[in-house]
Amino acid sequence: MKIIIVGAIGTIGKKVTEALQGDHEIITAGSKSGDLQVDITSPESIEAFYKQTGNFDALVSTTGSGHFGPLKSTTPADFKKGIDSKLLGQINLVLIGQHYINPKGSFTLTSGILSEDPVVNGVNLSTLNGGLNSFVIGAAIELENDVRINAVSPGVVEDSPGYFPYFPGHIPVTMDKVVVAYIRSVLGAGTGQVIKVY
Amino acid sequence: MKIIIVGAIGTIGKKVTEALQGDHEIITAGSKSGDLQVDITSPESIEAFYKQTGNFDALVSTTGSGHFGPLKSTTPADFKKGIDSKLLGQINLVLIGQHYINPKGSFTLTSGILSEDPVVNGVNLSTLNGGLNSFVIGAAIELENDVRINAVSPGVVEDSPGYFPYFPGHIPVTMDKVVVAYIRSVLGAGTGQVIKVY
Ligand SMILES: NC(=O)c1ccc[n+]([C@@H]2O[C@H](COP(=O)([O-])OP(=O)(O)OC[C@H]3O[C@@H](n4cnc5c(N)ncnc54)[C@H](OP(=O)(O)O)[C@@H]3O)[C@@H](O)[C@H]2O)c1
Ligand SMILES: NC(=O)c1ccc[n+]([C@@H]2O[C@H](COP(=O)([O-])OP(=O)(O)OC[C@H]3O[C@@H](n4cnc5c(N)ncnc54)[C@H](OP(=O)(O)O)[C@@H]3O)[C@@H](O)[C@H]2O)c1
Repeated sequence: MKIIIVGAIGTIGKKVTEALQGDHEIITAGSKSGDLQVDITSPESIEAFYKQTGNFDALVSTTGSGHFGPLKSTTPADFKKGIDSKLLGQINLVLIGQHYINPKGSFTLTSGILSEDPVVNGVNLSTLNGGLNSFVIGAAIELENDVRINAVSPGVVEDSPGYFPYFPGHIPVTMDKVVVAYIRSVLGAGTGQVIKVY
Repeated sequence: MKIIIVGAIGTIGKKVTEALQGDHEIITAGSKSGDLQVDITSPESIEAFYKQTGNFDALVSTTGSGHFGPLKSTTPADFKKGIDSKLLGQINLVLIGQHYINPKGSFTLTSGILSEDPVVNGVNLSTLNGGLNSFVIGAAIELENDVRINAVSPGVVEDSPGYFPYFPGHIPVTMDKVVVAYIRSVLGAGTGQVIKVY
């Protein structure tokens, strides 16, 4: 299978890449890293990216960032930055990528636990994650040629100890379980699923 | 109570306005209609709006639109239009409005059933609704001075028969039940709730 991984050098992405690279043709990507570069905040960049990758079987996105900070001081501009990155960035990988994906292909996006289990300072990420989960539910019923789409929704991951102080009472999830969720989405048969790892 | 209703002449908004206006001081608003005008797609317009309304006790938003059309032909620009209106428009009413709301006040936003029960052509609205539901969950734990926030999530409403063909198998919900959900949010004590009316 020809698999594109956007965010492939990230904390999660590098482990997903390791797990898939033995058996598949992998194209790694990031805004500055990887085999090919793409800036997910720019639809033009995504269009140019798929022209370079050509048709593919699976797109895994382990990228996108959100605003982390107090609601009280969050401005519309702060909020929009996260929308443009983690939410619209990943969605545009699908809107544009649907015209390049092979039959029976799959899209796997990354949301996160904050959609339903919020933390202080996390309202932007809650919103992005909730939007992504509902996007895959809505997109799954329209994708044609047996193309599938799922979201992996991890809890805070054991490999990101820097985040732990911001997630009081959250039990970090093991990276093994997170990686397996991506494998399930890419190699399994499910679609329209939010694969919760927490 | 001084209650602002944005979208007050709309299908849902006019019934919510009728239900609240006997007992409260109501300020109605729309982009072209109402006592005061506000364009929710513009943070500058929202800022100017609250300068006119002054402090208030409740903000009810029954407004915002999304893109309705096939996933296949949906462009990033189509998608963004809905994000700027129903999602960021309503969120910005809160981000800016939090600095004008009185202690014990409340925000009530409108999402919808498509967040979890999608229809063909509705992927943009699914995304906006899912994002809004998670926004209220995330915002509720940070609002201070006992300010509350909820989302009303209606199914397709009996008063909108023009939508029925796009919602096959959905049972339209009665407007009475929808109106009561807004009343519960404004006059009740709940916060961080997604009040489903379906
Ligand atoms: N880590 C966690 O505990 C955790 C928990 C739940 C959810 N998540 C979610 O999982 C995803 C990945 O998290 P992570 O911690 O693995 O992230 P990370 O370590 O910060 O890695 C981010 C990756 O995305 C790439 N990237 C950044 N900006 C980009 C852009 N504009 N266009 C394209 N690629 C870009 C980076 O490469 P370049 O530097 O080359 O751009 C990098 O490969 C995020 O959506 C995060 O919210 C993480
Ligand atoms: N109707 C349903 O069956 C149904 C079901 C589930 C969810 N919903 C949701 O409920 C909300 C209201 O739906 P509805 O059917 O009642 O809508 P509607 O009849 O179209 O009314 C929309 C209202 O919003 C105002 N408005 C439009 N654009 C605006 C802007 N840029 N800034 C400020 N105000 C604006 C309009 O007034 P002006 O013309 O003066 O701007 C009008 O008062 C929407 O979010 C919709 O998605 C509706």
